[in-house]
Amino acid sequence: MENPLLPLGDMEPEEFRRQGHQLIDWIAEYLAHPERYPVLSQISPGQIKSQLPLAPPSQSEPMATILADFEQVLLPGITHWNHPGFFGYFAISGSGPGILGELLCAALNVNGMLWRTSPAATELEEVTLDWLRQLLGLPATFSGIIMDTASTGILTVLVAAREHLGLHARQHGTSGLPPLRIYASEQAHSSIEKAAIATGFGQEGVRKIAVDAEFRLDPAALARAIAEDRARGWRPCCVVATVGTTSTTSIDPVPAIAALCREEGLWLHVDGAYGGMAALVPECRQVLAGCDLADSIVVNPHKWLFTPIDCSALYVKDPHLLRQTFSLVPEYLQSPEAEVTNYMDWGVQLGRRFRALKLWMVLRHFGQEGLAARLREHLRLGQLFAGWVDQSPCFERLAPVPFSTVCFRARPPGAEEQEVDAINERLLQRINTGGEVFLSHTLVQGHYALRLAVGHIRTQERHVARAWELLQEGLNHELG
Amino acid sequence: MENPLLPLGDMEPEEFRRQGHQLIDWIAEYLAHPERYPVLSQISPGQIKSQLPLAPPSQSEPMATILADFEQVLLPGITHWNHPGFFGYFAISGSGPGILGELLCAALNVNGMLWRTSPAATELEEVTLDWLRQLLGLPATFSGIIMDTASTGILTVLVAAREHLGLHARQHGTSGLPPLRIYASEQAHSSIEKAAIATGFGQEGVRKIAVDAEFRLDPAALARAIAEDRARGWRPCCVVATVGTTSTTSIDPVPAIAALCREEGLWLHVDGAYGGMAALVPECRQVLAGCDLADSIVVNPHKWLFTPIDCSALYVKDPHLLRQTFSLVPEYLQSPEAEVTNYMDWGVQLGRRFRALKLWMVLRHFGQEGLAARLREHLRLGQLFAGWVDQSPCFERLAPVPFSTVCFRARPPGAEEQEVDAINERLLQRINTGGEVFLSHTLVQGHYALRLAVGHIRTQERHVARAWELLQEGLNHELG
Repeated sequence: MENPLLPLGDMEPEEFRRQGHQLIDWIAEYLAHPERYPVLSQISPGQIKSQLPLAPPSQSEPMATILADFEQVLLPGITHWNHPGFFGYFAISGSGPGILGELLCAALNVNGMLWRTSPAATELEEVTLDWLRQLLGLPATFSGIIMDTASTGILTVLVAAREHLGLHARQHGTSGLPPLRIYASEQAHSSIEKAAIATGFGQEGVRKIAVDAEFRLDPAALARAIAEDRARGWRPCCVVATVGTTSTTSIDPVPAIAALCREEGLWLHVDGAYGGMAALVPECRQVLAGCDLADSIVVNPHKWLFTPIDCSALYVKDPHLLRQTFSLVPEYLQSPEAEVTNYMDWGVQLGRRFRALKLWMVLRHFGQEGLAARLREHLRLGQLFAGWVDQSPCFERLAPVPFSTVCFRARPPGAEEQEVDAINERLLQRINTGGEVFLSHTLVQGHYALRLAVGHIRTQERHVARAWELLQEGLNHELG
Repeated sequence: MENPLLPLGDMEPEEFRRQGHQLIDWIAEYLAHPERYPVLSQISPGQIKSQLPLAPPSQSEPMATILADFEQVLLPGITHWNHPGFFGYFAISGSGPGILGELLCAALNVNGMLWRTSPAATELEEVTLDWLRQLLGLPATFSGIIMDTASTGILTVLVAAREHLGLHARQHGTSGLPPLRIYASEQAHSSIEKAAIATGFGQEGVRKIAVDAEFRLDPAALARAIAEDRARGWRPCCVVATVGTTSTTSIDPVPAIAALCREEGLWLHVDGAYGGMAALVPECRQVLAGCDLADSIVVNPHKWLFTPIDCSALYVKDPHLLRQTFSLVPEYLQSPEAEVTNYMDWGVQLGRRFRALKLWMVLRHFGQEGLAARLREHLRLGQLFAGWVDQSPCFERLAPVPFSTVCFRARPPGAEEQEVDAINERLLQRINTGGEVFLSHTLVQGHYALRLAVGHIRTQERHVARAWELLQEGLNHELG
């Protein structure tokens, strides 16, 4: 018999309302003043863990206690990606409409694996990704799906590209196949190699192609590599071109690569996770030149389109091939509707969050013009900073700045080349422990390079100027 | 020069606060009365899409308009996984504390790829998964990571298990390897085969093992399959045992399978995505018997632990092997801290949401006793429904009920066996279009089976009773 006294069910609606309002207020205040916190968390390894109980609670605890612990124990261990001084990696921002979209997504808690398990989730994903496609100037021959990350996107693409070879890897596996090769520039993202490991191409299955002086894949070197591989028994499968490499944000010459891929019958994937989004700015649309010829392309709304992580858009020319590659429908997932999109058939994951909701809210709340204005301002700030570096006698730029990311280093007059890496490493360390800005680093032609990436929605000229000020002050300290 | 008049930046804090409060109120009301909506969306394919503009908005739209459109246009296309009459697939629930956790996660918007990119995200993930491990009675030799889905978990495991063979697939790829084999029962989840396709094992790389009369993998058949494969040149790699198969929730005999795996030197993975969570109920802890001997195990807090989708816990005995398999650290991701966990090294995805936050809030808000009480009630309701089926002259049960999921069918006296499938298919269709309950189906020994899975946090005895009533009424209609 049911016991009406059992304290079962969910949190009481009134309690949810009260705690929800308080949390919204906390978030509004936090987002209004993220610079109250150091951007890079200043705690030591193990410091958070040491403040948490070793064993789970046996009894229910009040939400107020839990949220107080969040603020006291966890918050010092947060690196504030919301801080306007976040210039590391690629700055990201989950804007207000995106945060509200995630809240609604969590509340609905639908699993959009099949059309019928929430038709609105599937159809809004189709529509929203088509909007984004239009915003980027990509042709209507592309169909989109939202994935968690570009890493999953490239993994999906490699498996589909392999199936496209007609060697029946889906059925028979890869052990009897000739060795297959993927091509990408030396500057391409590590996720390609990681996906190659996971899918069985292996690290040797990725051939890294030389770049030119501006870190762009050299199509002639690619053509030679393909010919050489064919002669030696490799089976070329896929080329990955990058629009906005992670290190220097260089743009591979997609039109030339696309022509070569067509000639050679190779799949062309474009990794535009960061840089592709710039095409939303009308005067920058040429960054995706040639991408209409690609077989697949990834752009990440969670990177430079103000959508909370995770939200990565994968576009493919041939969704039928994705389904041929991945679709497996056991009886318990059969549904009566024909002619609908069941996104579970397009990739590895069965469970799917309703991620289109936040993207739809971001696109509508800002509109194309609002989004373009924000990206345009980031591009302007990147150029501005690059200009300061160029004019400085103590700093030098190490790469072109096609977007809003600047690779540079301190190069004080009179410093010996062998000291310069160490000076920059110490300078970065000093800047980042200050808490006002956070920059990351990379290697450019063997040099330790500082890297400033503008992309956060709250970043203004004064924050970029402050970074520049801190770098100059820091260098003065370094030099005594 | 910076133009202070530019309408850049994020939504105004006051606007965020106002819209956030309204959304919280809407959600509180929605969660208090989800049964106001039909559980399975009743719209037709294309109906949502046809109400949405073909082109993206160029200008900013007010959040109030967007949320009004959500309610008017999208909501009819939602299948309500929050409805207490949701008995399809596996019912899931994102509880109040979990929803607030997702809200906070979206607001912080950290990418926990490296320890330093938010130490609290990494350390809370370590602690929370250790709490869950303790709650399930698993030994301290397991280390955990949160992934999006169990599909990603099994993919990760297959790649690691392959690396564990010492054949250097990471470096050389799989084309020169002997054909590798994975073993799982005929009843195992389709994600295993899908992961096998993605990783290059191929569908033929998965050998499906016969089950006994209660749908449990037969260890003797497994032993024979392994011996036969070895004799024929296959290289056995990994066995996947399931605790709670998707179709009938059968429990494979893990102790016997583990002994065989040890003898044969094979990786043992346990898929406990749904059923494993029952071990949190002290008197059900035996469902994970033998799992201490596994190399890896997956349980899904987003399935039966009231945590919003997505949140899947993967435990491994040897995280070092995961790192050996997957770790690739380009210069731009190098960080100065030694001896910390950088979760990006444990799998395919680089970007990582702060999913531990919602799980921590769920575990603390309900406590072990509160969680166990809810799971125990679901188990009771499953047994209760099974009892009604067993006592009915018109229905019959088609499988044992080890958890809270019942496979059954209408079998009216006098009906010919060849009519029974069609009767049940029509009965299911009738029930699901009524909007009060949603059940899914499966095949059990060739029979079309109705499947009622109790697992939603709001489901009470009266909802299960109503399902039973509707089934009986529906059958009466069917029989005229």
